[in-house]
Amino acid sequence: MPIDPDAVSAAPVEPAEYSWTSKDTLLYAIGVGAGSIDPVGSELEFTTENSADVEQRVLPTYAVIPGLSARTPGFGTFNPAMLIHGEQQIELHREIPPAGTAMTSGKVTAVYDKGSAAVVWIESKALDQASGEPIFTTRHSLFIRGEGGFGGDRGPSGAKSGPPERDPDHVVTYSTRADQALLYRLSGDRNPLHSDPTFAKLAGFDRPILHGLCTFGFTGRALLHTLCGSDPARLTGMDVRFSSPVYPGDDLTVKMWAVDDGEAYFRTERGSGEVVIDQGRCTYTA
Amino acid sequence: MPIDPDAVSAAPVEPAEYSWTSKDTLLYAIGVGAGSIDPVGSELEFTTENSADVEQRVLPTYAVIPGLSARTPGFGTFNPAMLIHGEQQIELHREIPPAGTAMTSGKVTAVYDKGSAAVVWIESKALDQASGEPIFTTRHSLFIRGEGGFGGDRGPSGAKSGPPERDPDHVVTYSTRADQALLYRLSGDRNPLHSDPTFAKLAGFDRPILHGLCTFGFTGRALLHTLCGSDPARLTGMDVRFSSPVYPGDDLTVKMWAVDDGEAYFRTERGSGEVVIDQGRCTYTA
Repeated sequence: MPIDPDAVSAAPVEPAEYSWTSKDTLLYAIGVGAGSIDPVGSELEFTTENSADVEQRVLPTYAVIPGLSARTPGFGTFNPAMLIHGEQQIELHREIPPAGTAMTSGKVTAVYDKGSAAVVWIESKALDQASGEPIFTTRHSLFIRGEGGFGGDRGPSGAKSGPPERDPDHVVTYSTRADQALLYRLSGDRNPLHSDPTFAKLAGFDRPILHGLCTFGFTGRALLHTLCGSDPARLTGMDVRFSSPVYPGDDLTVKMWAVDDGEAYFRTERGSGEVVIDQGRCTYTA
Repeated sequence: MPIDPDAVSAAPVEPAEYSWTSKDTLLYAIGVGAGSIDPVGSELEFTTENSADVEQRVLPTYAVIPGLSARTPGFGTFNPAMLIHGEQQIELHREIPPAGTAMTSGKVTAVYDKGSAAVVWIESKALDQASGEPIFTTRHSLFIRGEGGFGGDRGPSGAKSGPPERDPDHVVTYSTRADQALLYRLSGDRNPLHSDPTFAKLAGFDRPILHGLCTFGFTGRALLHTLCGSDPARLTGMDVRFSSPVYPGDDLTVKMWAVDDGEAYFRTERGSGEVVIDQGRCTYTA
């Protein structure tokens, strides 16, 4: 069975327990570059748990780690080498604690037929296990090359609203490292597309590409520090579309347009100027 | 109670189970720089578990991680900010598996009074839990400033045999990163001396210093690739003395003298030429 368009009407799976530790959130932070710019005193709240007068906090983009591991109903079979992360959205209902246990559940919210490819949208919710309060909701689309043509709905098209026609209000450049994906993958996504040159070639890339969600994490750090005064409680939402691959070692430049109180558009470019994240939009509190 | 010289005659503690996972050994390898030089295809056996035709293997220096966590009889109390890792020795009885369970036990083998400082030697053995076969033995000395003067034995002095008076046979330089300690500490040693600027200042350093055992791991990689054809089964022993602190971001240059079949001396210098590991000696099989 290839992609199954009826997955959207599948009965939901039972919520499953997902626990994370302080070590998990530290490892994630370092995997998306925290501490790499000025490690002596900068971002210590994200990279250490025992610095004097510093309480450990969690990068909001960590939500994608429990979010993507949430079980969902099956939606068919396909070659994982043909899978590309299309869009990613996170919605933070409260600050993520350094360690915790959530009940997570995922569902397939849409299956689209783009002709050559299938697009599957998945939504995951995480509720604090103790209180039942929602912590975050994530939504992502999987772009699966070669699996379209099953006669399904093409889904929405047309551009979303984007940044105004002016220079960005803020520009931040971070460097990724040649071995960035080797570190980031230890947070959970072990797809060899990001580490094994042989597998990457089979998937049509010259060499392993960086995880889209690693680029997402670097981008989130730039938004957090620039728009939210480095306070993770203030970042409430972030939507992106992955438009082009990033290679480990690329510089990432995040351009931000603050369009309203608590709302900004952004995009991320790799060193060469190519846009790798577009249609970026984030929300935050004052 | 300060340092207790009678700890050497304490009854041994019961061996305790120590388990490690593939993720632990991958994280350790990346923490000591594996994959950072040429990540596309180099050192994949140490940094990945699912690359085509590559079996995960473990850097021999990983032995220090279970080794240092082995429980030992108490040997008094002291200010951890005054603690410096003095010497480290590892002896590999077999190749360390990517994941496993060992029974580990430690004992205090010597307590020396150096006048201003105390030196405590600890030996740990790890036996494979299933077979009872020894995997490795580690020995390390703790140099504890301000805790000498209790009237104990000064211990051995005088230089060990060292490298011949000629240029080294091999020279390898690796770079550490500004945030190297933030990553390495996730393998277990969370002493804030390596991450917290405030704590480092209290301990008398301008800024956090790199873990001596991180420098040890970088040095071990240089020996492994240069002398052992990158085959961890061939490295059987490694002894070092930590002679000067390394700061995250320093380059490390390992100079090696192969003096006999399967025996080499080495030392490690930081960028400025200062010797940071001396009295290095390693053994390996052909």
